Amino acid sequence: MKKLINTPAHVVAEAVEGFCLAHEDLVRPGDGGAYVIRQDAPVRGKVGIVSGGGSGHEPLHAGFVGKGMLDAAVPGPVFTSPTPDPILAATRAVDGGAGVLHIVKNYTGDVLNFETAAELAEAEGITVASVLVNDDVAVEDSLFTAGRRGVAGTVLVEKAAGAAAERGDSLAQVTEVANRVIANVRSMGVALAACTVPHAGVPSFELDEDEIELGIGIHGEPGRRKVAMTTADRVTDMLLDPVVRDLGLQRGAEVLLFVNGMGGTPLSELHIVYRHARIRLEEAGIRAARSLVGNYVTALEMQGASLTLLRLDDELRELWDEPVRTAALVHG
Amino acid sequence: MKKLINTPAHVVAEAVEGFCLAHEDLVRPGDGGAYVIRQDAPVRGKVGIVSGGGSGHEPLHAGFVGKGMLDAAVPGPVFTSPTPDPILAATRAVDGGAGVLHIVKNYTGDVLNFETAAELAEAEGITVASVLVNDDVAVEDSLFTAGRRGVAGTVLVEKAAGAAAERGDSLAQVTEVANRVIANVRSMGVALAACTVPHAGVPSFELDEDEIELGIGIHGEPGRRKVAMTTADRVTDMLLDPVVRDLGLQRGAEVLLFVNGMGGTPLSELHIVYRHARIRLEEAGIRAARSLVGNYVTALEMQGASLTLLRLDDELRELWDEPVRTAALVHG
Repeated sequence: MKKLINTPAHVVAEAVEGFCLAHEDLVRPGDGGAYVIRQDAPVRGKVGIVSGGGSGHEPLHAGFVGKGMLDAAVPGPVFTSPTPDPILAATRAVDGGAGVLHIVKNYTGDVLNFETAAELAEAEGITVASVLVNDDVAVEDSLFTAGRRGVAGTVLVEKAAGAAAERGDSLAQVTEVANRVIANVRSMGVALAACTVPHAGVPSFELDEDEIELGIGIHGEPGRRKVAMTTADRVTDMLLDPVVRDLGLQRGAEVLLFVNGMGGTPLSELHIVYRHARIRLEEAGIRAARSLVGNYVTALEMQGASLTLLRLDDELRELWDEPVRTAALVHG
Repeated sequence: MKKLINTPAHVVAEAVEGFCLAHEDLVRPGDGGAYVIRQDAPVRGKVGIVSGGGSGHEPLHAGFVGKGMLDAAVPGPVFTSPTPDPILAATRAVDGGAGVLHIVKNYTGDVLNFETAAELAEAEGITVASVLVNDDVAVEDSLFTAGRRGVAGTVLVEKAAGAAAERGDSLAQVTEVANRVIANVRSMGVALAACTVPHAGVPSFELDEDEIELGIGIHGEPGRRKVAMTTADRVTDMLLDPVVRDLGLQRGAEVLLFVNGMGGTPLSELHIVYRHARIRLEEAGIRAARSLVGNYVTALEMQGASLTLLRLDDELRELWDEPVRTAALVHG
């Protein structure tokens, strides 16, 4: 294992420290780096939004802290949920009096620890709502979940909820927006090569030179099946078709098309995947009204990609277009 | 070789097509994809800015086409210079009557082909100026160059020149700004593992499990020397020290600190490198007034990073802060 780290035990703390230094115009470390928080938090009268989960998926979640998106992100150890304590501390720190929304990816550890933190916060008088992101169509249950996993679609939930909070929506309204995104977003991923978790020191799975793993999660956990390596266009079909089918998309639908890199795949390859998905959607009469291509929800240096579709309505399109100022997503 | 491509011969054309579709609010393909050009080019009365070079360094250069940066980018085959024809066509297409600046990385092929294109454009009555980026302190000459190579510092040249053009500077003034950045920017890179060029199908060099290549270029060409793998902090020292020395930075200096990923290194590792560089600079009394961390000038999926410092003056800091709207860099 060759990595630009000092020791596995310090990876998360040092990366968070570096991240906060590099982006000190947007964020600061909370409680000595236990979480990353917006410079101007808590924002009086605004719903606070907290997300978090295991590290190793950067820029998720800290890269999405800033105006128009998250108020705080709580990083756990690599691929391991954060404990309730820092989640509770972040919840307290972002509470501007209008309540706090927890955006939780559907992994057993995340669900339990966010739930505990929410109960403790409620006991302190902070109103907390939670939403569970479960956009992965690949598997119903997995090593890490009951039900579907939360993967790249999380970025779109965080963006829409963040925009709703920023325009002054109530906690109930922000929660409704987040749940509407969750109901309309689906993803499917593929891995060409595994990543290596620093503490483990060896790749998390093995693939032959001529096979790929379809339906992979964002921790290198098994997917649907191993298939023979083929062209980018055929791989894209294998990602796109189950997503379109699961969403029940019909001719005339409008979507956000998001091609996400797993960390170790060149941007040019993501654009080759995007190109074919776009052509296929056009053939099906589905309009890709908005697009996102890049490394947003990664699995360290895993080689592979995922494809996400969000069915848009007028309000979700407007919320996507609202200005956002974070380390990893800026527009408007 | 496992890559999300259809065939090596189509990689660049399909990636460019996908890129232009994904970012159609910013750019369009010129001459059937021979180059990528700003949607609103040519901008009447504004100096046009063209860059380009071998593909495989994405998001460089097409990711920096847009308001406040490049007017057009000309992609060659992977790691191979574009021919004069598309450079000439892009030069014509961005000429708004105030002349065109070519930003050229110092590689023999790029230098020759941009020079030929500039002569042909001049013969058509377009005024062209050129600057040569040569920020790599690792080697004086290399497999691909006479003199120092142009690497990640190119992004900072493109940003400053683009901002100067956008505010209405003349061609002479924009050229002066670009040359001032070039005179004050230095970089040094390291590779942990090689990349594989699609046409070649095998990794471009070999490194043992316990060695890294110091002073690597952005094509996997040899660097200064192979050294034993060590901690991120020590590797950062090996990148930072020659850059600080070459720039002759003294206590009280102000810099932009740019940690660039080579494509296959997780963002968290880049932040660990940034953290130590920032601490070291502070100890030396050098202020990192601006920062950039991410994958901006890559070598496909190579694992490694480079460290760039730009000595700032008031004008260069202001030009960095000017608004920019491109696929890969947005701020202001």
